Amino acid sequence: MDVHAPYLVFLANAHDRLAAKTGYALVDWCPERVLGQCRMDGCVADLGVRELSPEQAAAEGARTFVIGTVSPGGALQGSWLRLLERALDAGLDVASGMHRRLADVPELVARAELRGCRLIDLRHHDGALGVGTGKPRAGKRLLTVGTDCSIGKKYAALALAAGLRKRGHAADFRATGQTGILIAGTGIAVDAVVSDFVSGAAEALSPEADPGHWDVVEGQGSLLHPSFAGVTLGLLQGSQPDAFVLCHETTRTHMRNVDTPMPDPAEVIELTIRLGRATNPSIQCVGIALNTSGLSEAQAVAAKQALATRHALPVIDPLVDGVTPILDRLLASL
Amino acid sequence: MDVHAPYLVFLANAHDRLAAKTGYALVDWCPERVLGQCRMDGCVADLGVRELSPEQAAAEGARTFVIGTVSPGGALQGSWLRLLERALDAGLDVASGMHRRLADVPELVARAELRGCRLIDLRHHDGALGVGTGKPRAGKRLLTVGTDCSIGKKYAALALAAGLRKRGHAADFRATGQTGILIAGTGIAVDAVVSDFVSGAAEALSPEADPGHWDVVEGQGSLLHPSFAGVTLGLLQGSQPDAFVLCHETTRTHMRNVDTPMPDPAEVIELTIRLGRATNPSIQCVGIALNTSGLSEAQAVAAKQALATRHALPVIDPLVDGVTPILDRLLASL
Repeated sequence: MDVHAPYLVFLANAHDRLAAKTGYALVDWCPERVLGQCRMDGCVADLGVRELSPEQAAAEGARTFVIGTVSPGGALQGSWLRLLERALDAGLDVASGMHRRLADVPELVARAELRGCRLIDLRHHDGALGVGTGKPRAGKRLLTVGTDCSIGKKYAALALAAGLRKRGHAADFRATGQTGILIAGTGIAVDAVVSDFVSGAAEALSPEADPGHWDVVEGQGSLLHPSFAGVTLGLLQGSQPDAFVLCHETTRTHMRNVDTPMPDPAEVIELTIRLGRATNPSIQCVGIALNTSGLSEAQAVAAKQALATRHALPVIDPLVDGVTPILDRLLASL
Repeated sequence: MDVHAPYLVFLANAHDRLAAKTGYALVDWCPERVLGQCRMDGCVADLGVRELSPEQAAAEGARTFVIGTVSPGGALQGSWLRLLERALDAGLDVASGMHRRLADVPELVARAELRGCRLIDLRHHDGALGVGTGKPRAGKRLLTVGTDCSIGKKYAALALAAGLRKRGHAADFRATGQTGILIAGTGIAVDAVVSDFVSGAAEALSPEADPGHWDVVEGQGSLLHPSFAGVTLGLLQGSQPDAFVLCHETTRTHMRNVDTPMPDPAEVIELTIRLGRATNPSIQCVGIALNTSGLSEAQAVAAKQALATRHALPVIDPLVDGVTPILDRLLASL
């Protein structure tokens, strides 16, 4: 699934910063892909980029009108429709991460056909995929895994890929979710793939490459999360990672949106190794990315120290500390 | 997904017994659902039931024309089309487990609409499902798991459900694959579900029930099979089984259709317990169903004895020995 830059990021009437988190992730991680923002009356979010109408953006070379905010309930707001139509009329593709498909809105389908533009539904996957084969392939792969959902796997993967490139290694961030796909401009939303093809999708996403090339694959879910573990395992075995980084948070008592207690990081590391061995016998954990946003500075230092001692691994908060110690460990081990 | 009996089983021009294995499974496991068979010139398979045309079967009360054979390459054969149309004209639903959808054949869609009949694509799932919640629910659940695909999980589950009913327990076989759905008349093909909803599908399939009721869930894939493990794990955590039976075969060196070596049964048992605990902390293994079809009688006895000693579990070949020792263990432990 390819999304062409530059983007005009549509924030609609986002009532706070969190509602526009996709838009913020884009200016944080791929500012070069963002031409400007388009907001409606009452929008509180502001990405700090130029305000452009669809017509202005198209005149300046924009390719895609990206919905960078969530809509309440995941449905497409009627009040947005006119702007989406204007974007298509101006010759832009429209990309959406909403559950409701753009392709299910007859007005948009007709308009896109008329203008020769694409409606890109990032949460849906209709392309042909094969089942996973488990065949070893050249190139190196690093996967971020987590003790829970929404714990920093995308952020860690982006930081690790950027860090590898900064050290002169060939490295690609491989996106497996909607925001990641917008950042990379390509990827597969693996949770939208028919379950028979999850590991096949992961194989297609991180194909054979030069022996020194790194694919840094964005992880999804958790092996012990009752909602999403199937996605997590298919992604793990399909990616056949040489190494993985565990993403963790110490203040949560339960996993996200369920009553299941947070798992022990040691259990997730061990299960990842034992299940990952099915496709890469030398898989190893090279570090822990700890989300310390809920801790004081002193608590964060203590938490990192405790995990580092217990697991004999570098432990960092990528947002605070960068990823240098993990990259050192990764490159020393492989 | 419901399929109404009685069935007229369509064997087309099946060139051998294996090609008609779905048809044979139906007469083996649900003879009461099978009204007759419908064959084309050159068909070698014979289910030993009455030969009926679609019109004759409909006149005798048949409800569904079931494609009980595979077609080379999974595509719908042009030569079959006329018979499928006759079935619809006679007022029968048509059910298919082929990859190619009946719903993608315009002639069949038009005919089905005209006659008010259904085209049932068992390998596809379009219904609404939620994500898994992991919430404990009343009722008891037994899942069959495997060291590999195509190793006897459906057969074992059917035998265990039948055995429980024979002992006076309320028990339902819960079908997760196409043949199982035809046998039970209902079920969800979990590998056809979007991966985000695999565990949610398993929860919907084995819902809350009376405390003494058993759902015996048909397993899929293997936790260490690089093609299908995501399906396996979603099904495991969604089913939240109290107990599981491991299905195994001792003569295979590699898992089906891949180069990955067969896993150690002990590893699969341990991983099943550790991953299953996320939704049922008291999950336990109650036996091993060994497929001994590739062994001599003496070898089979020795293989069962070796596994029983090593794992301290009852080991039987359900086809040869029945499932009594496993049911004894199950009912004694729960």
